[in-house]
Parts: sequence; C-alpha cells; structure tokens
Amino acid sequence: MKVKEYMRSLGSAARKAASVIAGAETGTKNSALVAVADALDTNRPELLAANRKDMTQGKVDGLDASLLDRLSIDNRRIDQMIEGLHQVAALPDPCGEMTDLSYRPSGIQVGKMRVPLGVIGIIYESRPNVTVDAASLCLKSGNAAILRGGKEALHSNQAIAACIQEGLKAAHLPATAVQVVEITDREAVGELITMNEYVDVVVPRGGKGLIERISSHASVSVIKHLDGDCHVYIDDKAELDKAVSIAVNSKTHRYGVCNAMESLLIAEGVAGLVLPRLVRAYREKGVELRGCERTRKIVDMNSATEEDWATEYLAPILSICIVDDVDAAIDHINLYSSGHTESIVTQDISRARQFMAQVDSSSVIVNASTRFADGFEYGLGAEIGISTDKIHARGPVGLEGLTSQKWVVFGEGHIRQ
Amino acid sequence: MKVKEYMRSLGSAARKAASVIAGAETGTKNSALVAVADALDTNRPELLAANRKDMTQGKVDGLDASLLDRLSIDNRRIDQMIEGLHQVAALPDPCGEMTDLSYRPSGIQVGKMRVPLGVIGIIYESRPNVTVDAASLCLKSGNAAILRGGKEALHSNQAIAACIQEGLKAAHLPATAVQVVEITDREAVGELITMNEYVDVVVPRGGKGLIERISSHASVSVIKHLDGDCHVYIDDKAELDKAVSIAVNSKTHRYGVCNAMESLLIAEGVAGLVLPRLVRAYREKGVELRGCERTRKIVDMNSATEEDWATEYLAPILSICIVDDVDAAIDHINLYSSGHTESIVTQDISRARQFMAQVDSSSVIVNASTRFADGFEYGLGAEIGISTDKIHARGPVGLEGLTSQKWVVFGEGHIRQ
Repeated sequence: MKVKEYMRSLGSAARKAASVIAGAETGTKNSALVAVADALDTNRPELLAANRKDMTQGKVDGLDASLLDRLSIDNRRIDQMIEGLHQVAALPDPCGEMTDLSYRPSGIQVGKMRVPLGVIGIIYESRPNVTVDAASLCLKSGNAAILRGGKEALHSNQAIAACIQEGLKAAHLPATAVQVVEITDREAVGELITMNEYVDVVVPRGGKGLIERISSHASVSVIKHLDGDCHVYIDDKAELDKAVSIAVNSKTHRYGVCNAMESLLIAEGVAGLVLPRLVRAYREKGVELRGCERTRKIVDMNSATEEDWATEYLAPILSICIVDDVDAAIDHINLYSSGHTESIVTQDISRARQFMAQVDSSSVIVNASTRFADGFEYGLGAEIGISTDKIHARGPVGLEGLTSQKWVVFGEGHIRQ
Repeated sequence: MKVKEYMRSLGSAARKAASVIAGAETGTKNSALVAVADALDTNRPELLAANRKDMTQGKVDGLDASLLDRLSIDNRRIDQMIEGLHQVAALPDPCGEMTDLSYRPSGIQVGKMRVPLGVIGIIYESRPNVTVDAASLCLKSGNAAILRGGKEALHSNQAIAACIQEGLKAAHLPATAVQVVEITDREAVGELITMNEYVDVVVPRGGKGLIERISSHASVSVIKHLDGDCHVYIDDKAELDKAVSIAVNSKTHRYGVCNAMESLLIAEGVAGLVLPRLVRAYREKGVELRGCERTRKIVDMNSATEEDWATEYLAPILSICIVDDVDAAIDHINLYSSGHTESIVTQDISRARQFMAQVDSSSVIVNASTRFADGFEYGLGAEIGISTDKIHARGPVGLEGLTSQKWVVFGEGHIRQ
C-alpha cells in the first residue's frame, strides 16, 4: 500500500509536470539539457563516489563481470553522458511541427501537429547512463519521465538524478519533469505499468525476461524491444567481396548487441565459392559455426537444430543455412526472424526490391551490415530503444517515436451542412 | 476447444493471406474492390433476403428501434456500400511509399517504407455495412482482415462476405484475405484478441462497454475509440454570430455521434451576451440544458453535477459552464474531456494558438464545428474508427493508420567501422 501511494504520487506529479514541459519553448528545454551536462561535469566526484558504493555492493552480491562492467561509471563514461546531452540539445525539436495542412471541399483547413505523448515510464536494468539518455530524450520531446533503474545502480542513479534536478531548476522547469523511483521493490514496477491515468507509455529496456514480464502485465501501452535475431542473405548475384565483408562485420563487429547477425543464409548457387572464405574468417575470430545439412557437405561443422534458426545468441555463435534462392531466403526469414533487421547482399535490383518489399522486419538493408540498424547511425541523434512492435514505431525509436500527431482544423465559422 | 481451433484456423489462414495481400499491386487491390461493389449490386435480392431473416429474428428477440435501424439494409444502404468501395478504390495506395531517404555520414542511405500491419481483427456490433467498410480499408492498405460482427447481423454479414469472396476471386486474390467469423460464441472474441502470433492489431467498433471489455482482455494491440466528450469554448474575443452557429451545429447537427459537443464553455466576459441567444436556439430544438451556478444566474436551467462535466450524453442534453478565460477553459477540458475533439471560437490569434498547443485531444479546432472531426471530412476517404489512444494513431484512422513504417537502408558494401 505504501508503494502504491508512493508511485501514484510520482504519477500525479509527472502528469502535472507533463503539461509544463509540453508547453516549454525549445530554447528552455535545450538550456536545461546543457545545464544537466554542466552539473554532471561539476559533480564528477559525487557521481564516482556513488558509483563506487554500487560497485562495492555489487561485488558483495556476486554480480558477474559483464553486469559489473555495465554498472561502472568512470570519467570516460561521464564524458559520453555529457556529449549525449549536447547532441540531444542540438537535435531539432519535434514538438509543434505542423504538416499536411490542406483545404477540404467544405472550406476547413486540416493538418497534423506533432505533440508529446505525455508521461513516459522507463524501466531498465543496470546501466546508469540510461538514466541520462532516457531523461534527455523524454525532456527534448516534451514528455515527463518516470525512471525506474535496477536496484544495483540505485546510488549512481540518485546521483545522476540530482544533476538532472539541478539542470531542470537552472532552466526554471519543474523538478518533477524527471523523477527517479527510489523504491527498489518490484511492486513499484507493477504499479508503474498499470497507472493508466498517470502514465501514457512504458519503455522497458533490458533482457527478454524483463520485457516479456512487463508486456504481459502492463495495461499502459508498451514500446517493446524483444529479440534481435538478425539475418544476412547472400544472393547468387552478390559481389563476393562485399558479401564476405558484410557477413563478417554483421557477426563479429560486436557480439552482444541486438543488431548482430545470428543466422547467415547463402544461395545454393554461390555457396561453394563463398562458404570456405567465410568459414576461414569466422574461425580466425573464434566464432562457433552451426550449419544445415547442405552447408555441412561443403564445410564440416556442427549441425544446426530447428531451435538454432530462431535463436539470438548474443555470442560468437552463428547458424548457417543454404537456401535455393531469394524466395526461399524471404520465407526462411519471415518464418524464423524476430523482425528486427535483415540484410541482402546482391547486385540484382529486382531481387533487392523484392527482399525490401517482402521481408517483414523493422529494418531491411541492401548491401550493408546489419550493424547499421541503430538510432545514431540512422541520424535520430539518440534512441530510447529499438522497437520490434508493428504499431506506433518500428525499429530505432528516437524523439519522433516519443511523440504522436493530433489533428488541427482551422475554419472561419464553418459548420457541417 | 472447438471455438479455439476454429479461430486459430482463421488466424493461420489470415497470416498466409496477409503476405499475398501485402505484395499485391495497387491495380489488383482496386479491381478486387470494384468487383466486390459489382457483386453487391448483382446480389441485391440475396442481401435483402438475408437481412430480412436478421430483422425478423431481431424483432422476435425484442431489439429496440435504434438497433433495428442500424441492422437494416435497404437499396439505399447497398448504394452507399457500393459508393464507399469505389471511393476506397480511388484513394492513393499507402503501401510501399518511401520517404525521408537521405545519406548518412557513414555513406549509407536511410529512409522509411510504409507497410501494412499484417492481420487486423475488427470486432463490431449490429451494423452490417461495417463489414464492407472494414474489409475495403484493410484490403486497400494491404492487410488481411478477420471480421467479427454482432450475432444479430449474422445472415446479413454472411451474404456480404459472399460478395467480398466473389470480388477477391475475380481479382485472383486469396479468399482468406477477408474472413467473417461464423461462430457467434463470445469465446471467439476472446480467442481473436489473444492470438498474438496470428493477429497484429484489433479494432473494436461499438459501445463503450465493448471497447473496455476488449481493451482489458486483449494481449494483441488495440486501436481504441472510447468516449467522445467534446467541448466548444466560446472566448470573449469570439465573433458572436460564428459562436452561436458553431455551438448550435456542434450540439444539434446529430445527437448520437461521437463528435457531437457534450459540454459548452463560455468566457465570463461574453456569457451575458451570448447565453440567452444560445439557450433560445437549444430550447427550440428541445435540448435539455444543465448549467453551472454562474450559468444559472444568467438563465434559469437545471443544475449540472460534477458527473455532467465528464459525460458523453449522445442525446439532446448539454452541460454549460462559464469559465474565467482561455486558461480556465483549457484546464477544464484537460481535466474532464475524453480527448476526442475540442473547438475554440475566437478572433484572437494568440488564444487560438494557445488552445491548439495546450489542449490534449486528438482533434483541436479553431472556429469550426466539432462535427468536422471525421475521416471523410478530413480527406481520409474513409475511416476504420476514431482513436482516442495517444500512440500509433490519434483521431480518425484511415488507410495510413492501418500501416506503419519500416526502415530501409541502401549501401554499396558498407560495414560498421
């Protein structure tokens, strides 16, 4: 009951702050962002001290090395947060943009206006930099934010929140425009995702377990990011140098990211030529290969099971399947893919157009690495996440994905006949 | 268990048909729509006979007059369905539209492509014409549809479905692109709104009870249309002739529609002048008036309760509140409104801009009747509903609201550095 009341008080305060932020001028929001950056810079000792508390406790609690790495803050990471704030401040303001204004036969003029969503709840795990990223995107897009980070990062998040409060205050914006949940109880999340009168949309950022749990219990709308089971298809009309370079980069540039390739499809006509080159490159980098029967006839490797075709490894493991042609590649992808990102390597324009039209994923790429599927690479400036949903926003979600469009109508006393 | 299997077989067939429809050329989709119109024209006797069965049963079941009116089909209503199909065929095809293609510093070219959502479930009540409207919008936007109408319209819907099948067949499109649920069991709806692997979005069309029931039980995304508790605010800088004409039209043009005004706000400075004229006009038309204390000091009428300010009457009843100024009007609206449509009458451009920016509703209107908030009036050609949600689509939802945008990337062998 105490948790419920606490969360509802945050919600009510956020709802009030939302209308102030929605009406704030672009310059005011930008100066708040810059003031937050300045506060982070000035308060480095406090941020590092708070983070040391979390790190010490994390070690006591036996967090594994990768979790501890995500949790840690050093001066370089503070620099990145500061740089990110300046970047978001430099982005165009999406709010208030009016488009498609046109006259209707009745005489009214109709168009659309881009507006904030209202109050956005962000639920994330150990990385404290998400606190800054999420707050800056919500603020710039005119939304109030309620941030609920992992309990292992609580001290770090509170120290960052203090800097955010300082920045908001400097720009004369309400401190409640960005609130960090200070209760680590799970009940707090349960309340956040069901307070429909106070929260307009929830963005969970973290592992699949977190996102599925949130999605299945939320009554508030959720912008979800599930698996990134990405594919590259090497067509028999591909230029093989491009194909090798793209397939190697898509898998090995980074392993633990959602836009890494997890499954490679190769047209039968070109498999004999390209597969040995690829296998050599992957094995040099220590990637474990799991192939279909046709693949294993060309190069010996472990056998891929049905489960492999739908698995996001997030690790140096790759499944390889030889397919008849582009039709078979598209069918395979639409059957097994999580709908995140797929790439075709081909010089044939008809096949490129077919792949682009028929592959039902949030990003469809021709002759480039899947690793480009990212808000920064797409020019969004920053991203709150990558949506694998089909409604509202697909793929990388930046400022525009945190807004929607309402209709505006101008008349001169017009009435319906 | 039988219902579940039946619904899942519809879902699986719809999923297969969706990829065919998504890839169909614009001309093919248009010729299917025209062929459906021709089939409706040719099969008038069958349609009228099927509808007579439903009407007879409806009378036996004691349906009230307004329900029977919505259920009935005559030659004029068949003409309207035919006309609607031709209109949708004439609309531009939203699918495949590519926008915002631009080069990034990395050398890749990034843009967006508009694509169908996939499979759309429509759940509606007694009006059989929804079967045609919904099918035509889903088809034109490249989606497969599963239609679940009210059980009282089953024979009519089946007769219309037969015409739709005929049209799809004539255009060599899969008959399963539009399927009508033939089981009237409520369990069928429960299954439809939770078959996430087969259904991408559900659109409930009907009363508030239906929509709330669907929303609270659906795991599939829902495009919802809740109340239309619309407001008109008459500012003290309004031209009074315009104000009277807009306020009367917004309330009395039609009573049972979601874009009718339910609450009238008047700036105190002008209430003494305009209220007596308005009251006269409303009373001539038999509208029951319920006023705040300040209103009742100017003209005697029933007293409005707190509940009145948030009520969608859908009837010749109007609540009237005198407010201090535009700020108070905006606060009142954002507190009580359902977020559907609000209109300001003013000659003052600053107040018009303020109202437009700060009122958080799906349509915000300056100097025109709330009755214009409608897909046809906005130029969408047709609408599947009016969304009071904030994400994905707000206000009238036409073809574009049944699509989303995926990202497309072109490279020439580009990889991430």
